[in-house]
Amino acid sequence: MVYQQQLAVKAVRWYQDKLEILDQRKLPASIEYQYYDNAEGVAEAITTMQVRGAPAIGIAAAYGVYLSVREHFGIENKHWRERVEQDCRLLAQARPTAVNLFWALQQMQFELDKGNEEPLHGLLARAKKIHQDDIDANYKMGQYGAEVIGTVNGVLTHCNAGALATGGYGTALGVIRSGYNNGITKVYIGETRPWLQGARLTAWELQQEGIPATLIADSAAAWLMRSGKIEWIIVGADRIASNGDVANKIGTYSLAVLAQQHRVKLMVVAPMSTVDWHIKDGSEIMIEHRHQDEIIPPSLNIGNAKVDAWNPVFDITPVELITAIVTDRGVVINPAQIGIKSLKND
Amino acid sequence: MVYQQQLAVKAVRWYQDKLEILDQRKLPASIEYQYYDNAEGVAEAITTMQVRGAPAIGIAAAYGVYLSVREHFGIENKHWRERVEQDCRLLAQARPTAVNLFWALQQMQFELDKGNEEPLHGLLARAKKIHQDDIDANYKMGQYGAEVIGTVNGVLTHCNAGALATGGYGTALGVIRSGYNNGITKVYIGETRPWLQGARLTAWELQQEGIPATLIADSAAAWLMRSGKIEWIIVGADRIASNGDVANKIGTYSLAVLAQQHRVKLMVVAPMSTVDWHIKDGSEIMIEHRHQDEIIPPSLNIGNAKVDAWNPVFDITPVELITAIVTDRGVVINPAQIGIKSLKND
Repeated sequence: MVYQQQLAVKAVRWYQDKLEILDQRKLPASIEYQYYDNAEGVAEAITTMQVRGAPAIGIAAAYGVYLSVREHFGIENKHWRERVEQDCRLLAQARPTAVNLFWALQQMQFELDKGNEEPLHGLLARAKKIHQDDIDANYKMGQYGAEVIGTVNGVLTHCNAGALATGGYGTALGVIRSGYNNGITKVYIGETRPWLQGARLTAWELQQEGIPATLIADSAAAWLMRSGKIEWIIVGADRIASNGDVANKIGTYSLAVLAQQHRVKLMVVAPMSTVDWHIKDGSEIMIEHRHQDEIIPPSLNIGNAKVDAWNPVFDITPVELITAIVTDRGVVINPAQIGIKSLKND
Repeated sequence: MVYQQQLAVKAVRWYQDKLEILDQRKLPASIEYQYYDNAEGVAEAITTMQVRGAPAIGIAAAYGVYLSVREHFGIENKHWRERVEQDCRLLAQARPTAVNLFWALQQMQFELDKGNEEPLHGLLARAKKIHQDDIDANYKMGQYGAEVIGTVNGVLTHCNAGALATGGYGTALGVIRSGYNNGITKVYIGETRPWLQGARLTAWELQQEGIPATLIADSAAAWLMRSGKIEWIIVGADRIASNGDVANKIGTYSLAVLAQQHRVKLMVVAPMSTVDWHIKDGSEIMIEHRHQDEIIPPSLNIGNAKVDAWNPVFDITPVELITAIVTDRGVVINPAQIGIKSLKND
């Protein structure tokens, strides 16, 4: 498709029968791809946040399942399904919060369960379809979201919900891409401690796209709102509960509360694979905590137990604080009032 | 005094006829003092944030005036007052937001205006008194604040309002020191981007004092409140307007709004030299913006104009969001209702 050409930034790509993953820990200082030909490596790349972002994790995991089957499938090996199951468990445990990971594994499972004599062709096609569908979904959401926003002075995004977090184009950043020059005239980015996804990834992506952006310290967002510089906050999601509660990068809940107090609107942009219909609300979402070394300065952390860190990676934003949820299946405005069940494809 | 012995951490000290300033940019990795024997150096140390924190800046500036007079005073130099005026302007321009700086310069001006034939002795005594008074004030505030707080599970502080920000003991951190083991059982610290005063300075100070503390990313504060882990937020101030509005480290306003939404209380702790009776409210306070390189990752910032940063160092918290203002002259509970004029010494 034509718009594929625009995707300069690719978190995950399938090339010469291998999965290539852009090492996002090294951005923006260097652009380095690692190559994977087995599921174990892919799981490790997810756990260590070489690839991150709920949709991108799902896509990587899908290719991971294919790589696992490719490694273990064979007539001489009666236990190949067992080995693949093992790899799938490994992939599922790589990160606990994003649901797209489990969704993608399930998609691959459906394909496996067909019991084709030669499963490889179908599995690779399925992984590629998951990847392409995600890109297509992002373009749709970009358009939907930009239409909802219309003409505004400033928007703020948090973390990275861009091409780097997805198959390409991005969710929240897809809306900003579609809206820029079409109504959105100014983009702010929260730097997003402790991992600095905003400062390292989103700023870099927008730089690649030629979209000017202004970084702020996360704690400056309230003062930015108070000064009237933004009208919308646009974020992605790692999991959406069936009532519309949203798990997303730590700090999203903070922005949501502050937005309500400053009459700023909050848009959550995520593909349908982010919705977890199995859970009633956000309280059922497991919040990952990462290592405290991400926050404690190295020079403090020398065997001294007096200082530690509380490092939740995500928080839950209650649906009451969300103005609009944008998905590839449509938009729900004011989801707390009307629910999100209308998005369900029954 | 006895408690002087406890002050292991000193931001500023007068030793062997020189001003010694602890280089806070290098903490906690190394403890290095720089020596100053002229005002120009002191102004530079303030501008470059080698010394920071409103009261500590004021104390350093007071010694700076003495150093200026010591350099320029002499019968053979008719223009020494002019040179001293020049130095005072330099000191006044070193940082724009904290009012203690201007207050301390005014105190020194009073002493100069006595026109003593030998001004040096009086000026050094005045600078030392400003320094000692600040320490005494901190002990008082520590006690007052701890009494107001009583027994609570957790408190959160932001930035560094400790010994490093003052003559010694600290304002907000003085309250935590006084309250720890006496009612306060758990201390959280916001890391305080972009300069990480919380992670680098407050965590280090508490480590020195043997008080366990838990660091959080600034954007995790809302989620911490939501989870019910804290009952008070305790911060210092860089300037307090006569209506009780408070200028303090960027992020304080954010915490104040979030605190109100989560029924967490907010205490501002500052000596009376922080109150600027000349201004009606916070809108008259000049907010310093620092260089955008504090926020933009070095690898992004290579002559590319597409990404910039908005880097206000302070924000204004409206008095309506403040539960208690603690000063060395007493405590005002609910300052929005009753005003802070009762603290004025007319």
